[in-house]
Amino acid sequence: MIGVVKVKACGLIVEYNPFHNGHLYHLLQSKNITGADCVIAVMSGSFLQRGEPAIIDKFHRAKAALTTGVDIVLELPYPYAVQSSNLFATGAVLTLSEIGVDSICFGSEHGEIESFTTGYDLFTNNKDSYNTTLDKYLKEGLSFPAASTKAYHEIGLSNGDIDLSQPNNILGFSYVKAIMDYQLSIQPYTIQRTSSNYHDTEIKNNIASATSIRKQLLEDEKNLLDVSNTLPTETVNQLQSYKDKGGIWHSWESYFSLLRFKVMTMSTEEIASIEGVDEGLEYRIKDTVLSANSMYEWFESIKTKRYTWTRLQRIFVHILTNTQKNEMNLIKQATTVPYIRLLGMNQTGQAYLNKIKKSLDKPIVTSYSRDQFPMLEMEERATNAYYSVLKPKQMQKLRKQEFKSPIIV
Amino acid sequence: MIGVVKVKACGLIVEYNPFHNGHLYHLLQSKNITGADCVIAVMSGSFLQRGEPAIIDKFHRAKAALTTGVDIVLELPYPYAVQSSNLFATGAVLTLSEIGVDSICFGSEHGEIESFTTGYDLFTNNKDSYNTTLDKYLKEGLSFPAASTKAYHEIGLSNGDIDLSQPNNILGFSYVKAIMDYQLSIQPYTIQRTSSNYHDTEIKNNIASATSIRKQLLEDEKNLLDVSNTLPTETVNQLQSYKDKGGIWHSWESYFSLLRFKVMTMSTEEIASIEGVDEGLEYRIKDTVLSANSMYEWFESIKTKRYTWTRLQRIFVHILTNTQKNEMNLIKQATTVPYIRLLGMNQTGQAYLNKIKKSLDKPIVTSYSRDQFPMLEMEERATNAYYSVLKPKQMQKLRKQEFKSPIIV
Repeated sequence: MIGVVKVKACGLIVEYNPFHNGHLYHLLQSKNITGADCVIAVMSGSFLQRGEPAIIDKFHRAKAALTTGVDIVLELPYPYAVQSSNLFATGAVLTLSEIGVDSICFGSEHGEIESFTTGYDLFTNNKDSYNTTLDKYLKEGLSFPAASTKAYHEIGLSNGDIDLSQPNNILGFSYVKAIMDYQLSIQPYTIQRTSSNYHDTEIKNNIASATSIRKQLLEDEKNLLDVSNTLPTETVNQLQSYKDKGGIWHSWESYFSLLRFKVMTMSTEEIASIEGVDEGLEYRIKDTVLSANSMYEWFESIKTKRYTWTRLQRIFVHILTNTQKNEMNLIKQATTVPYIRLLGMNQTGQAYLNKIKKSLDKPIVTSYSRDQFPMLEMEERATNAYYSVLKPKQMQKLRKQEFKSPIIV
Repeated sequence: MIGVVKVKACGLIVEYNPFHNGHLYHLLQSKNITGADCVIAVMSGSFLQRGEPAIIDKFHRAKAALTTGVDIVLELPYPYAVQSSNLFATGAVLTLSEIGVDSICFGSEHGEIESFTTGYDLFTNNKDSYNTTLDKYLKEGLSFPAASTKAYHEIGLSNGDIDLSQPNNILGFSYVKAIMDYQLSIQPYTIQRTSSNYHDTEIKNNIASATSIRKQLLEDEKNLLDVSNTLPTETVNQLQSYKDKGGIWHSWESYFSLLRFKVMTMSTEEIASIEGVDEGLEYRIKDTVLSANSMYEWFESIKTKRYTWTRLQRIFVHILTNTQKNEMNLIKQATTVPYIRLLGMNQTGQAYLNKIKKSLDKPIVTSYSRDQFPMLEMEERATNAYYSVLKPKQMQKLRKQEFKSPIIV
């Protein structure tokens, strides 16, 4: 794949929920560092890595990114998107590899790529020891992230060097690990995420986290004006446009009545067959449904040291999207992605795709069809679940984009 | 069972959706004809025989009936209630038999019991011929009721005598058939349903069908005043009381968004595993979900000559309640009911139960519990689905009755 084309492409792994000034800074810095002519983002679709519905749909988020300078936006397939860091990273890196990127560039708290690559060597040389320690802490009832951080620490990783308890270091390390494990010809780069180290002062002064932006938007829609200085103009437009078309700003609470109904009419065996549910969690989920008055209350009443809020959120996304363990097992065993889903592109992106399309090993798909990949069927279910909180006419209109040509800006 | 007690009990098979003056007439006439001291109604619970949600919950409907003169109200288990006439009749008659009724009395268009019993003999003597003709018409694409009517006609039943295309004659014939097939010691009686033949003029002038009463109530809640002359006072009270406690007057449209979500996230294989779905109907159900703007539109877009409105309604109840073919198959093979669910009673009913309870073969249950009958689990799911259109606090409050002692008036 690599070497067929002259155009240098850099891959970004993103959620853009929504696309804000920090993302713009990441985009500009990535071009700078890698010298890429074309920037390709692989973006979570309807639901996000931490197990939340995206605030607006993928098409409006993709359009904001494309208008602001990303050249191509691909969809990270649902079965990879709503997963812990390793599977998330695998799906993203494999997708970017199929589309032929030379490099990826990710933000991290650490900010120096060497520690990630030497860390990988340390990790592979001590894999058994890592796994033993990981198992020990999992058995003690720690959550996977907590147990993994401790296991990294004990094999000497993250001792005074790269801190693998930091969320973006963990993700970054997973990207590097996926590249190395699959022996992909992709050069990893990282930029430091801490906003105090940002050099571009004009943007820097107007950076807020996606979390804080969403919080304000979901609190009161009038806050769009207040957060608009942290967002590129096109993001403000798309947030507004999605709502104007009859969309809402999606949050967990939008899905409460649907999930309550679903769980109240499922048997515990059926809940146990859902991706991520194990160790008798099906009983806890069912026992708590009747007394919960909101998603927040429901999560609170289930969560334990082992079942973190994030893990529960992912499980509840899988209940909502009816994602079965047996379909996920097939995907977890796969070593490639079956297709590349193109959400949109600009002219630079279009030119890049024209040049490389003959050398692609995997089909580019833009739309759902009757006889499709099992993974695309899961994507369609996820999209259906996502839109199912909208009124019928609005749902029909917004969902149509799924069957149209990709967005071109 | 029969003969153990001196008190004469008459069974009624009812839905009371809601209990109206026609039902009161049926109750009084039944006591008259049978000379029963105790009247026991077996009533559909959350969902009804024609595949509709009950307008108010079973407890408020039961209370109206008990206050107006029914002595005991039992629940017809969900797996029997939402079914075509034969299985509906079997569940009802077997339940009444377990509680020890001496007779049943049903309303019919025909009005004369002899034709039902001689009809049964004609039917059993020509069963093979009936089945052959039934199959032929089913293969031609007729619905079951239409094919069955034709098959009855061809074996000489319903020729000028009992008209088995009339809905209450069909149900009545199914009751008689169930009594005879299971060789139960129950004497069947019938009264004529046509209101013009009603003798009790005081009630007669104020009789309207449950369908027309519901139509008016669902159109505008203010119509409660207009229909109140067709309802016993206690029904008006219970309709109001259910709403005052945070309930709604349930209709199919209340369930549209839940069903749309459910179907949009089910695979066709999963839809095909639902009770009643066959011959590829799963594709039709899935293909039509996205364009429907209401339950009405959805039913309209699926229905065919073979898939009547009623049959589709039943299937959609089963989707809502997650009723699987494999759990129903066990029930269809059963020759007794596993328990008697008591919803409520008055003092006459209480005295009756005290006298006969030692001679009962089946347990009387009033509440759901952890280790319960599979059929009661299905009932709980149905109840959960029924209440899931209410807000959490109201749902919690109203659902509590499920775990309380039976209603005593």
